[in-house]
Amino acid sequence: MNNFNFYSPTYFIFGKGRENEAGKYVKRFGGTKVLLHFGGSSAIKSGLLDRVKNSLNGEDISFVELGGVMPNPRSGLVYKGIDICKKESIDFVLAVGGGSVIDSAKAIAAGALYEGDFWDFYTGKKVEKALPVATILTIAAAGSEGSSSTVITHENGMLKRSAEGNALRPVFSILNPELTFTLPAYQTACGITDMMAHVLERYFTNTQEVEITDRLCEGILLTIIKEAPVAISEPTSYGAHANIMWAGMVAHNDICGVGREQDWATHQMEHELSALYDVAHGAGLAVMFPAWMKFVMNHDVMRFAQFAVRVWGCEMDFQHPETTAKEGIAKFEQFLISIGMPVRFAELGAKAEDIPTLVKNMRLGNHTVGSFVKLTEKDVTEIYKLAV
Amino acid sequence: MNNFNFYSPTYFIFGKGRENEAGKYVKRFGGTKVLLHFGGSSAIKSGLLDRVKNSLNGEDISFVELGGVMPNPRSGLVYKGIDICKKESIDFVLAVGGGSVIDSAKAIAAGALYEGDFWDFYTGKKVEKALPVATILTIAAAGSEGSSSTVITHENGMLKRSAEGNALRPVFSILNPELTFTLPAYQTACGITDMMAHVLERYFTNTQEVEITDRLCEGILLTIIKEAPVAISEPTSYGAHANIMWAGMVAHNDICGVGREQDWATHQMEHELSALYDVAHGAGLAVMFPAWMKFVMNHDVMRFAQFAVRVWGCEMDFQHPETTAKEGIAKFEQFLISIGMPVRFAELGAKAEDIPTLVKNMRLGNHTVGSFVKLTEKDVTEIYKLAV
Repeated sequence: MNNFNFYSPTYFIFGKGRENEAGKYVKRFGGTKVLLHFGGSSAIKSGLLDRVKNSLNGEDISFVELGGVMPNPRSGLVYKGIDICKKESIDFVLAVGGGSVIDSAKAIAAGALYEGDFWDFYTGKKVEKALPVATILTIAAAGSEGSSSTVITHENGMLKRSAEGNALRPVFSILNPELTFTLPAYQTACGITDMMAHVLERYFTNTQEVEITDRLCEGILLTIIKEAPVAISEPTSYGAHANIMWAGMVAHNDICGVGREQDWATHQMEHELSALYDVAHGAGLAVMFPAWMKFVMNHDVMRFAQFAVRVWGCEMDFQHPETTAKEGIAKFEQFLISIGMPVRFAELGAKAEDIPTLVKNMRLGNHTVGSFVKLTEKDVTEIYKLAV
Repeated sequence: MNNFNFYSPTYFIFGKGRENEAGKYVKRFGGTKVLLHFGGSSAIKSGLLDRVKNSLNGEDISFVELGGVMPNPRSGLVYKGIDICKKESIDFVLAVGGGSVIDSAKAIAAGALYEGDFWDFYTGKKVEKALPVATILTIAAAGSEGSSSTVITHENGMLKRSAEGNALRPVFSILNPELTFTLPAYQTACGITDMMAHVLERYFTNTQEVEITDRLCEGILLTIIKEAPVAISEPTSYGAHANIMWAGMVAHNDICGVGREQDWATHQMEHELSALYDVAHGAGLAVMFPAWMKFVMNHDVMRFAQFAVRVWGCEMDFQHPETTAKEGIAKFEQFLISIGMPVRFAELGAKAEDIPTLVKNMRLGNHTVGSFVKLTEKDVTEIYKLAV
């Protein structure tokens, strides 16, 4: 196990009707003038935004609204949000939505206290301070409600990049599973794939003696495998959605990833896909993860066998561990198909002839990506080809 | 899953040599004058205390030393610590030791900002404010390094009671597994039993649809079952001790217990044992937990069967689930014996004729204890008898 620091100071408020406590918690965490940030019309139509506004009004907290966050959130709205914060002396950013809204809110919160271009944070500068951010989560997926990171796509070049810093961890996050009942099944499945990917990026590691985080990773995956089909086929199953929602947070606040090298190559390969084609992040991950696994499996067959046995219930083939390892990858791919995810380029609308562009956009040059296996441009090209 | 709040804001600093960063973190978290609280001579002899003092000196942080915390920490030293804090204008309490030292530090930190008797907090008053507490952990066991609770024994009547409040969560905790290498095997085993008990108090619940926390509980237990024999037989195995140390934190910061009714009857029964006989808490738990399980098993045979299959690798007997359930309890008891724990009264020096005293000291009256099964005085008497 490697040395590590772990810090997850977010106050989580979980359960039915908890969004009505938003005002109370904004007040407790020092907000007096709030940027209320959200996405499209669903938060308005469902009445959620009204409930949140009522809660803020009930505590005499003033707010400025900024809606319109798109999936794969863009820089344009972030610049607009930063302007509003500076002009209106906003001291608190409240995100009502899924990972895209939260990531946009984090970008605004960091940019509001920074003199330069907020994009600096997405090209390597660490976020040291930001306005306090809080979230009311409506999609179980990205884990941004408990994480220290944010992903934004810059409209100049459609580059999708991430920024990081403990200042970006939400001060509080409200998670009401009922808010996820109305999501289309496809979007629920995309979210489920995203959270599985967050675990897998941590699970496949070269670090030895990490049984505790291995077991926590496996526990989260086993939960998702059990609850996902229920959440998708029974949209109002509170139990299934509650388990999925908390799994999504635990998958990404790093409690299951501390003390071990993490990989994240697949996320970077996917970012190029969703930047180029504007596909859902989860769908892109469903296409890329099995391909990545097939390419790297021989690097550590026993880890893939462990994945197969402990997570997918495969019988260990002690004579041919690689058979078990392959079976685990196949079961994962079958699971993704069973919840309605694409697993090949064509299903996503991606094209084999764009592979050179995808690889070029990663700007690897002579560098590599990933840590389980350090991938060169040539390796990445092969993996994209496996996904065709 | 029940509604819940979860808040674990402690900054964890984990790994080799990290105690040398104590001064840096005290400064970061605002400490200027520290009460340095510790136990017996081992922290002095090992040179740990000197390293911590050097680290504080390096940041020009002044401190007052208060050693002498005993296992099952007592009220007398707490009163003394509170006096020192008030007289010396202490603004930060740094605990160097195991759960006893940390619990004593938490009591002092709460009492230092309170006009009344600190014992009020241990008889029902919630802790709303306290001096910041930080820890340098030397025993993997109690989980107090990440928890919001503290247990103290009052010398007036030898009552062992707990207090709770988010203000008691350490601002930072330094966990260096190497510091646990020198513990006697018996004490390591007591710590292991304590952390298993923290999981089990959460695991046996009547709350439905809690797969995510079930799986996290099971993952922690599976880790402990694998790593404990190594940690005991190879005292300098870094990997085993690192896994055990982080498992001890995760077992008790409540990440594996949110959203579900928890039991805690066994802890209360054990508190009476260790208060009366001054035995190690972990040893007392090893005696009481199998007894409790045998008494309550029929309340939910399938939960005990799940415990047997998922945690102990038992084969499910689908015709007779109670056979599997019993096998799980037997395997747990065998495991405790294998790591050198007592499992009966006599091994602990406890006496059957004291059972009425133990029951009386719980002061249940017409109330019950526990939630999985609500135990009356009669039930508690039966469970103590099963442990004889």
